[in-house]
Amino acid sequence: MFFMNKNFKKNNFTFQKIIYLLQQYWSEHGCHIYQAIDIEVGAGTSHPLTCLKALGTNPFSAVYVQPSRRPNDGRYGMKNNRLQHYYQLQVIIKPSPRNFQDLYINSLKFLKIDLKNNDLRFIEDNWENPTLGACGIGWEIWLNGMEISQFTYFQQVGCINCKPITGEITYGLERIAMHVQEIENIYDIIWDNNKFNKITYGEIFKKNEFEYSIYNFEYSNIDFLINIFNQYEKEINRLLKKNKLLIYPIYENILKIIHVFNLLDARNVISVIERQNYILCIRNLMKILTNRFYLSINK
Amino acid sequence: MFFMNKNFKKNNFTFQKIIYLLQQYWSEHGCHIYQAIDIEVGAGTSHPLTCLKALGTNPFSAVYVQPSRRPNDGRYGMKNNRLQHYYQLQVIIKPSPRNFQDLYINSLKFLKIDLKNNDLRFIEDNWENPTLGACGIGWEIWLNGMEISQFTYFQQVGCINCKPITGEITYGLERIAMHVQEIENIYDIIWDNNKFNKITYGEIFKKNEFEYSIYNFEYSNIDFLINIFNQYEKEINRLLKKNKLLIYPIYENILKIIHVFNLLDARNVISVIERQNYILCIRNLMKILTNRFYLSINK
Repeated sequence: MFFMNKNFKKNNFTFQKIIYLLQQYWSEHGCHIYQAIDIEVGAGTSHPLTCLKALGTNPFSAVYVQPSRRPNDGRYGMKNNRLQHYYQLQVIIKPSPRNFQDLYINSLKFLKIDLKNNDLRFIEDNWENPTLGACGIGWEIWLNGMEISQFTYFQQVGCINCKPITGEITYGLERIAMHVQEIENIYDIIWDNNKFNKITYGEIFKKNEFEYSIYNFEYSNIDFLINIFNQYEKEINRLLKKNKLLIYPIYENILKIIHVFNLLDARNVISVIERQNYILCIRNLMKILTNRFYLSINK
Repeated sequence: MFFMNKNFKKNNFTFQKIIYLLQQYWSEHGCHIYQAIDIEVGAGTSHPLTCLKALGTNPFSAVYVQPSRRPNDGRYGMKNNRLQHYYQLQVIIKPSPRNFQDLYINSLKFLKIDLKNNDLRFIEDNWENPTLGACGIGWEIWLNGMEISQFTYFQQVGCINCKPITGEITYGLERIAMHVQEIENIYDIIWDNNKFNKITYGEIFKKNEFEYSIYNFEYSNIDFLINIFNQYEKEINRLLKKNKLLIYPIYENILKIIHVFNLLDARNVISVIERQNYILCIRNLMKILTNRFYLSINK
């Protein structure tokens, strides 16, 4: 019962309610509500609905939640604000509307975040995703010194210039929930609090964080990962050489080797040069694919 | 604009609205709203929140949408009601409530499905998932002769008896949307229809279905898949032998080889005996894992 939980006020929003409200808000501003991609990715940007839709001239707007995995960020479930698996809420609009920043600020007000008594800042932080060959000008958005969102205008994807420009907002849902629920520890986030029972983020994910930190940092098999990476690379190259261009299967296989690379990176065994080679290898595959994709949509 | 679309009446629900309404309905009946797992699975049952939570005595209830991939079911985007990638809405409640079937029927009424003038039938169809070592007694639910849901009381998961019994309902969202929107072709489903624009299921997914059917049936690399399967199997066995038991990383690796197996199966190159061997191999890994998991939660 929420009245027994001193940290949770009756009018605070639960994690699942925050998701609903943001979907609702952006839906009212024309975004279609989509589902996450069922492949491990580091960020909502990697979803084909962002990464591929940012190319070409067709208007597109979407809002979706994406589980995001960053093996390097695991902290064994011991740190209050860092996870290797978390949720991003992703908004993209193409072409980017003129009032995109205002729309974002209003979305925070929609979550009843009081912007008069809290310090909201846009900190310039141009964004780059080297494996996807993507970059943009952007801002980190800080609320009382904590990064809660990222704001980006895409300039390139797969090394192709974006015209028109897509605007992207990525909400760090856990950070926003921590602010909204006025708590210090990510695991205390109230995920849901219905009339039957309450469940916290920690009850759902803490064991997962602990186990995956062990797996990612200590137990994952380096030879296995290198081997898997090489085989996927060969397979993607083979598919790229086929007559019929299969955009989605190739793109999703690229997402898979990016995750294998992230797992390898977390093991801290690849040198600076090897790391650069892996990134170049992935970007090259991505570049060939997006080039052909771009040609196909401009036919 | 919906008034220009003769198939779509103003009071019909869009695909995204159907998802929202079902989440809302089950949330009001105590289910927490979760997110999909970001790994390719054949059904919502494979999500750890169903498959692992069905074991042990702790009460649990959840509703979530799961993208489901069944490579064998692709039809090149040409068939009106069959997809290799679709969405299930999954509801599980443990222990299964006595009025679970009534709750289900009321959920259809909540979607304004008229059960007086449509023919709803529960067709006995006991369910088995041989790779997960899972089975249950259950029913297919037919609406005017079209299967729209599956209803299951779990008896075993990972070859372990479930006590208490978990009740599971799996909604075929596309089938339900076809009925609600009174359309014959899955690709005509209205996904969203907001004041700015409308988008159909076909606009989002038809190309994807076409490409993945080619990939799954014609282009995926058999040697590559067999090799990947064998390496994941070795890796899972290695992880199972480690001192510290990592439930989630091992479970998710098992999900990955199940998908590799499904891809191989779609290529129609494995004999009946080989097929059986693959299934036994996966079930054995699953059995070892769930046994240890079951011991750990009963400590």
